[in-house]
Amino acid sequence: MNNSITRGDIQLAHERIRKYIHRTPILTCEQIDDIAGCEIYFKCENFQKVGAFKARGGLNAVLCLSQEELSQGVTTHSSGNHAQAIALAAKIAGTPAYIVMPENAPRVKIDAVKGYGAEVIFCAPTLEARETTVEDVIREKNATFIHPYNDERIISGQATSAKELIEDLSPRKLAAILTPVGGGGLLSGTALSSFFYSNETLVYGCEPEGADDAFQSFNAGRLIPQKNPQTVADGLRTSLGEKTFSIISEYVSDILLANDKEIIDAMTLIWQRMKIIIEPSCAVPLAAVLRNRELFSGKQIGIILSGGNVDVQPGLDGTRLTFSN
Amino acid sequence: MNNSITRGDIQLAHERIRKYIHRTPILTCEQIDDIAGCEIYFKCENFQKVGAFKARGGLNAVLCLSQEELSQGVTTHSSGNHAQAIALAAKIAGTPAYIVMPENAPRVKIDAVKGYGAEVIFCAPTLEARETTVEDVIREKNATFIHPYNDERIISGQATSAKELIEDLSPRKLAAILTPVGGGGLLSGTALSSFFYSNETLVYGCEPEGADDAFQSFNAGRLIPQKNPQTVADGLRTSLGEKTFSIISEYVSDILLANDKEIIDAMTLIWQRMKIIIEPSCAVPLAAVLRNRELFSGKQIGIILSGGNVDVQPGLDGTRLTFSN
Repeated sequence: MNNSITRGDIQLAHERIRKYIHRTPILTCEQIDDIAGCEIYFKCENFQKVGAFKARGGLNAVLCLSQEELSQGVTTHSSGNHAQAIALAAKIAGTPAYIVMPENAPRVKIDAVKGYGAEVIFCAPTLEARETTVEDVIREKNATFIHPYNDERIISGQATSAKELIEDLSPRKLAAILTPVGGGGLLSGTALSSFFYSNETLVYGCEPEGADDAFQSFNAGRLIPQKNPQTVADGLRTSLGEKTFSIISEYVSDILLANDKEIIDAMTLIWQRMKIIIEPSCAVPLAAVLRNRELFSGKQIGIILSGGNVDVQPGLDGTRLTFSN
Repeated sequence: MNNSITRGDIQLAHERIRKYIHRTPILTCEQIDDIAGCEIYFKCENFQKVGAFKARGGLNAVLCLSQEELSQGVTTHSSGNHAQAIALAAKIAGTPAYIVMPENAPRVKIDAVKGYGAEVIFCAPTLEARETTVEDVIREKNATFIHPYNDERIISGQATSAKELIEDLSPRKLAAILTPVGGGGLLSGTALSSFFYSNETLVYGCEPEGADDAFQSFNAGRLIPQKNPQTVADGLRTSLGEKTFSIISEYVSDILLANDKEIIDAMTLIWQRMKIIIEPSCAVPLAAVLRNRELFSGKQIGIILSGGNVDVQPGLDGTRLTFSN
């Protein structure tokens, strides 16, 4: 067993973050059930604080720090939801946050991070520039770096979404829970919660064909990093980490794929029929269900809708929602 | 007193339709409260069957019909949510529905009406063509015409949304409830529910400046029909009817206005912060609150989000939502 996270760790994470997060609703949609041929319970993390499940892990990680660590501050690099999650967590913990963001990050995301009182440090839009800039911050400020997924505290925090899903549907037992997989924090946490709280429930990771490193790694039995990802699901372009890969290898049933057209079609279905806004990354599990109907036919399954952060460009004759990360 | 609708009528309407509709959720959003300077409870009729409150009135009207009337069928003309509401109600009641729609109605709306098993009869896109076509249907089929708002059964059905809002927040008493106003079915029903179930709560109608017949009529004390409406809030271009005007004159505190820019800004705020899809018409009450902050400052108020039907045009780099009716 490669995993050091216990049931107690997830329980403690939930108690630690409970009062700062939303217990997000579980929605159903008869029309989508008819189309999919199964009964789907959608856990709506798009309604979570900062608009994504990332608030759970970020809060747990920051609230685990010692007083000494908190006195120095926290740092991370992200252009997306993790940046907001750490900024929110730092505000709640009363510690400074230094968020490294690429200089071409969308204005709305920069404003959101600053809105939580974090200091934004800009860098060139490359992974190398991000990492060296964060190293500078760590050295100068003695701040603690919080990785977006390859971290037990993050994984334990993300695990609380599936824990709530299982608790709120109890005594009904789901046949399967599906999540998107990018770096693997949500998927590995979900797999552990399912193992500890609903052992007969299978867990599937759902990944875009254009960023299929989890699919490749899962099937090869070794980490194969993502090269040159090409997908509309901007939140899922990252590679698994060692910790998330290890848990996924042991506790996940399979990785299912969907292409960009299937992802956009599934996202449109959710927007049209459920009237809620989700990111393209969120739609990958429903796309995978529609591609693999035989796996789920007639069953009760859960899907974690991971986030709802899209850029809204209003206009008087129509509004455009875009997905650039 | 010009109103013949009693508390008992609304109670009966609710019992009649309860098992066929969603008891829609009430959402709150701290960020919008901070911006507005008051505490807002959003009653989410965008999550209602057919995507709008219209399901309530349509169901009540059709379920009130006699066996003889039901054996002949129902008819209406509409390019929007009322068409779907009557089609759904007819399906539930097991009666034929003949829906007159303009030949340029959006494909998605035509398909939705047909999806409920209704017969769609196309006409030229003018009010005159709609009315003469419906008259033909009434003569040929002996079908019962269901007006979209100027009908006590419709008003009693629409009243059930505010009734639920008041019940679900009890014992908290709202200072005010705001709804959009087009033909006035939702506003007059809301005003009656507030009068019967929460007498100290004020009710405001909210209207686009470019289709301000309710504002004009309310202030003049006589019906002034809308001429040449120009507004992005496509659901609110209709004029009050005699019955809705009479109730609104007696039970509504005021009609508040918002311009198209304010409406789109309020809609964008709801999409971005609440991650739910609403129509522009839905955003008029929030726009009116933001324009009239002093009226609501520090108070607890309710807003009925009337519907969520927009056209979704998916694309791989972004998705466009348009509002043409």
